[in-house]
Amino acid sequence: MSHGFALDPQLAADTTAVAELPLCSVRLSADRTYPWLILVPRRADCVEIIDLGPDDRAILMEEIATVSRVLKELTDAHKLNVAALGNSVAQLHIHVVARDPEDPAWPGPIWGKVPAQPWDRLERADFTARLERVLAEA
Amino acid sequence: MSHGFALDPQLAADTTAVAELPLCSVRLSADRTYPWLILVPRRADCVEIIDLGPDDRAILMEEIATVSRVLKELTDAHKLNVAALGNSVAQLHIHVVARDPEDPAWPGPIWGKVPAQPWDRLERADFTARLERVLAEA
Repeated sequence: MSHGFALDPQLAADTTAVAELPLCSVRLSADRTYPWLILVPRRADCVEIIDLGPDDRAILMEEIATVSRVLKELTDAHKLNVAALGNSVAQLHIHVVARDPEDPAWPGPIWGKVPAQPWDRLERADFTARLERVLAEA
Repeated sequence: MSHGFALDPQLAADTTAVAELPLCSVRLSADRTYPWLILVPRRADCVEIIDLGPDDRAILMEEIATVSRVLKELTDAHKLNVAALGNSVAQLHIHVVARDPEDPAWPGPIWGKVPAQPWDRLERADFTARLERVLAEA
């Protein structure tokens, strides 16, 4: 089913792997400013949500819901932002971001607001492990 | 099924009615800078996508797809942006926006980039009528 799919090199550079769901790869943004996950459906040549078939779209919605619940549980997020933009990286990907009124972009959108802040390696490994654990139970 | 639902006053002020789908009211942004539709599920007390039940989420995904196709057909959009943010207006609503490399926010997100540009009344009536017609055929 993932015939011909390859993760976009820019998405690969901007994220790290967290988990594989039936449709999507779940990845963590390299910018630790916000708790920020990215879902990438493992389907070749998809740019828009409507490039997926209806069955894949239904799975995508439930994977968005699962990742949303996990991120909310782990971060006690005030608000979730869910977005498929893709203006810079064409390969279909969905942002799921935990927002807080204290974050530097609130209440605006996160993209391009402040320079990306790199993770400490151990901190990222710890957050990824917690994500994996809660996702496995979801 | 829409017991207790009332459109948020800010959303009502920022948009005009286009059509009623089984789950969502489809509304046109009062800012004509971008071809910009907003879907509002007629469910009370929903802030996040995960506040909807799984059946409603499946319908929401298909209504997003329908509106995306219609907007793409009418505008020949280079890219669609689909987003549930809700940082300023809490009531769950989903933006579906047609983007063009010539638009003033490209490739950034549209929110807060340039001052809202009001519609000419006849121009809006014409665009709304075209949206209604293509939606009815979708």
